[in-house]
Amino acid sequence: MIGEEADRPVYIIAEKINGFVPRSGKAIEEGDAEYIKEIAIAQTEAGADYLDCSPATTNGYGDNLETMTWLINLIQEVCDTPITLDSPNVDILLEAMKLCKVPGMINSASLCEGKIDKVFPAIAGTDWKCVVMLDDDVRGIPSNAEGRIDNFRKVMQKAEEYGVDADQLFFDPLVETLGTNDQSFVCFSEVCRAIVAEAPEAHITSGLSNISFNMPSRKHINIPFMILSMFSGMDSAIVDPLNRDMMGCIYGASALMGNDEFCMEYIEAYRDDRFGVQKK
Amino acid sequence: MIGEEADRPVYIIAEKINGFVPRSGKAIEEGDAEYIKEIAIAQTEAGADYLDCSPATTNGYGDNLETMTWLINLIQEVCDTPITLDSPNVDILLEAMKLCKVPGMINSASLCEGKIDKVFPAIAGTDWKCVVMLDDDVRGIPSNAEGRIDNFRKVMQKAEEYGVDADQLFFDPLVETLGTNDQSFVCFSEVCRAIVAEAPEAHITSGLSNISFNMPSRKHINIPFMILSMFSGMDSAIVDPLNRDMMGCIYGASALMGNDEFCMEYIEAYRDDRFGVQKK
Repeated sequence: MIGEEADRPVYIIAEKINGFVPRSGKAIEEGDAEYIKEIAIAQTEAGADYLDCSPATTNGYGDNLETMTWLINLIQEVCDTPITLDSPNVDILLEAMKLCKVPGMINSASLCEGKIDKVFPAIAGTDWKCVVMLDDDVRGIPSNAEGRIDNFRKVMQKAEEYGVDADQLFFDPLVETLGTNDQSFVCFSEVCRAIVAEAPEAHITSGLSNISFNMPSRKHINIPFMILSMFSGMDSAIVDPLNRDMMGCIYGASALMGNDEFCMEYIEAYRDDRFGVQKK
Repeated sequence: MIGEEADRPVYIIAEKINGFVPRSGKAIEEGDAEYIKEIAIAQTEAGADYLDCSPATTNGYGDNLETMTWLINLIQEVCDTPITLDSPNVDILLEAMKLCKVPGMINSASLCEGKIDKVFPAIAGTDWKCVVMLDDDVRGIPSNAEGRIDNFRKVMQKAEEYGVDADQLFFDPLVETLGTNDQSFVCFSEVCRAIVAEAPEAHITSGLSNISFNMPSRKHINIPFMILSMFSGMDSAIVDPLNRDMMGCIYGASALMGNDEFCMEYIEAYRDDRFGVQKK
């Protein structure tokens, strides 16, 4: 967590163990256990609170319980960082939960295809967390903030029905590509503020790649997106913790937002070589 | 301007022609006219709306009308970018105004030492702008936002008395060093929001170096400071337009804030080689 003493510390969900990341996809398809263990350790040392674990590759390989199991076991061999189980297949997620030594996070549920009705009973009363996307079966991704806030309220009702705490939920407001919708972040930010206002214990998360898809010099969209989203109430992101510029800016933004007493967290992260000119 | 179609486009005041910047201080002390002309052109090409022109060097050299005149003439020899006349000495500023071919900006006035009562009459009814610091003779820099907002209101009263338009004023809320005051940006942001709410035509500006003074890896404070300040209503900064990461993040933040139709400004700035991997 960054901003540990803050009302809303920021949780880093490390993104690299994902079959859609080319180097990881290659490792998954080739059964390269050493590479998976290496990036599990590296991401943990860089400050990951959760390690995302998404076995499916771009070639359609890996989206099965066997590959998920292989990855979970490799990660748990080298670290005890909680795992974010990431699959479009809810049945794989529910089976994989049983393999985890410490409670992690389900990625993801939503109102679509009754996923919430399968996932919420499984995490109720536990320390498991869950990413909840704000789309639905009828509208897909609602085009405006109102539609997504509406879905957020429906999810919160479901959570109450199933006995899931707001603190277990990481809402993903679903950011569209800025290049095709130049009001995409304006909408995202509005949804974030509504969630914070209505359920301050709930969390907000997002991936960072969608916003800058097809744009040049993507870091100059991704970094401002992260910073502006934090200021809008987002307290988590699925991000590469080895991206030193991104991490430096997250620590810097957290300090600026008044969440870092005497800036000690910023200074210690710098000393730990998490950003700035590389020491080792 | 960045975000030309926006309610609050962002004005770039280029910072390099300043005797406290080591390379420029050397050029001023050695009378190196070529270097001054070179950075006047380079900063203009990089998108400067104003060229700050601050003759005083760290050795106490240059804070006089003669050096100011030398710099103004060099700048005007190579470009017609408006000049921000920057000196602690109001008499030099008022004399230097007469040398400028196009209306520029006074940097700065404040309630201190009756500076406003000298500067405001000189700019009333003209197209000149003025940076106004929010300190005062009694308190220096007020320690909290209320004190600075109080001074902002006093300045707005003075502006009305002298017939100066809100649009002529670039308020500097005065940011303290984050390392000695970890609530410094929280205060700064509050002052920004109050100014936008009470005088939406007025501008807000700041230097970027003070916030990160004595901190490691200063860019990871400066870039988030710029982005978070833009989101709080700051629409100008005294900044190095040749700093490609900073400029990329300003264009990115402007696009994210919904101020860049189809992201065309971002894409054009990238094509013009203002940020991203250097093309030339």
